[in-house]
Amino acid sequence: MSIILNEVHNEGLSLNWKINKVLYKEKSDFQEVAIVELESFGRALVLDNAVQATVNDEFVYNEMITHVPLFTHANPEKVLIIGGGDGGAAREAAKHHSVKQVDMCEIDPKVIEACREFLPETSVSYDHPKVNVITKDGIQFVKDHPNTYDVIIIDSSDPIGPAVQLYNREFYASVKESLKEDGILACHSESLFLHQKLIKDIFASVDSLYPITRMYLATTPTYPGFSWSYIMGSKKYDPFETKIDEKQVVDAKYYNHDIFKATFVLPNFVKELVGLKK
Amino acid sequence: MSIILNEVHNEGLSLNWKINKVLYKEKSDFQEVAIVELESFGRALVLDNAVQATVNDEFVYNEMITHVPLFTHANPEKVLIIGGGDGGAAREAAKHHSVKQVDMCEIDPKVIEACREFLPETSVSYDHPKVNVITKDGIQFVKDHPNTYDVIIIDSSDPIGPAVQLYNREFYASVKESLKEDGILACHSESLFLHQKLIKDIFASVDSLYPITRMYLATTPTYPGFSWSYIMGSKKYDPFETKIDEKQVVDAKYYNHDIFKATFVLPNFVKELVGLKK
Repeated sequence: MSIILNEVHNEGLSLNWKINKVLYKEKSDFQEVAIVELESFGRALVLDNAVQATVNDEFVYNEMITHVPLFTHANPEKVLIIGGGDGGAAREAAKHHSVKQVDMCEIDPKVIEACREFLPETSVSYDHPKVNVITKDGIQFVKDHPNTYDVIIIDSSDPIGPAVQLYNREFYASVKESLKEDGILACHSESLFLHQKLIKDIFASVDSLYPITRMYLATTPTYPGFSWSYIMGSKKYDPFETKIDEKQVVDAKYYNHDIFKATFVLPNFVKELVGLKK
Repeated sequence: MSIILNEVHNEGLSLNWKINKVLYKEKSDFQEVAIVELESFGRALVLDNAVQATVNDEFVYNEMITHVPLFTHANPEKVLIIGGGDGGAAREAAKHHSVKQVDMCEIDPKVIEACREFLPETSVSYDHPKVNVITKDGIQFVKDHPNTYDVIIIDSSDPIGPAVQLYNREFYASVKESLKEDGILACHSESLFLHQKLIKDIFASVDSLYPITRMYLATTPTYPGFSWSYIMGSKKYDPFETKIDEKQVVDAKYYNHDIFKATFVLPNFVKELVGLKK
């Protein structure tokens, strides 16, 4: 018998992932949480039928959503990850020598439970001395922590279900309040091909709130539309002025300092999409 | 009724493309040739059930496989495209002021026939005064044209079916003979995630034949594994030394000269894969 996870990317495209084994499947208060073993990408966290992180490619996303803002900041000490329950972003943040505290605020305790048992590659961070695992609503959490963080990473699932409120201007404004005066927000903004309206909206919202807004790119093959994009809002530091070669080297599978320099280079159609000059 | 094209990427992953309309479907001497309208990426050329080029994203591949080698060369005048029957690479090559002649050697006349009628976005190049459409076997063609071309682009379908012989050392050696003494070979080398052995083999083969071998990257969302890679073998010119900002600007949707500089930056796992130093 072949077991297939059919993941719908949009009306015209869906993916059939062959599943070798279902390791965990429970309904939480927020979503259906599953850990499966995919034939082609290894173990994976699946939320409401959407692949969130696989052991074969999670490193691209987790390294890029973390190292780019952390290296843009001059001296990040306190980092907040909103969502990111698999632990991958926290794992990467803890690698920075300057970082003293990583608060990972995941709304769904079942995600933590599932990843702790079945995704040790990412959940290894839960027990790191720098990392605090917090199971609370990120929206309320940032409101309760004004002027606290150097970097806040919004590591959310897609803008449907529990994560939808993490994709609007009001939330980016709350995050701004929770950042210190030289703080940086980083989030992903989905696919250059399938989610162009979303990218435009996020870029415009962040740009209206933060003095410096930068977009960057890194393909994550298991994410819908594949050409994955990220947006940073920064109160003070501009990655275009970062002296990246003077920074600490991190042990990583995707990231290196040349990648830092290259990731901000945008194709013409993307510049046009977000209103930057060709 | 929903009509679905099920494209198998590997044993563990297949894609369901919703088809709005089948515009052309014929069996040629080499393969099944079809033009369909995909709900999510527009009109597409499909060969033996594999999506080759869609109007929504062909520009990424066609611009990158063409402009990168052409701008690496100091003065490309004669260009050969092996395969590339949709015409997209020829369209891009013809944009270069220095280029006087683009020979497009496509083995399958039915591909030409189908694209001429249903994919004007790419086949527009067929009637360009610089472009010669040749329907011959590329393997024999390069043997018959020693010391002729400045740049040869291998724009083939996947390494199954009629294209399989375009992916081996013997063919890269033939191409070398067909290049002038300062010529450049460019080919695609498929996905960083799904085709690692192939990438390793192509890189090693090219590297054993050409003094300068460079790999570069550009995601094409409709290609299997999505993180698409390209390899160049060059007899004389090194793209790392190209003064790209002094070159002609081409009108393009993806490519710009900053992309030229960024595209050669490789993630750590890719460097490791092809045997480059981290």
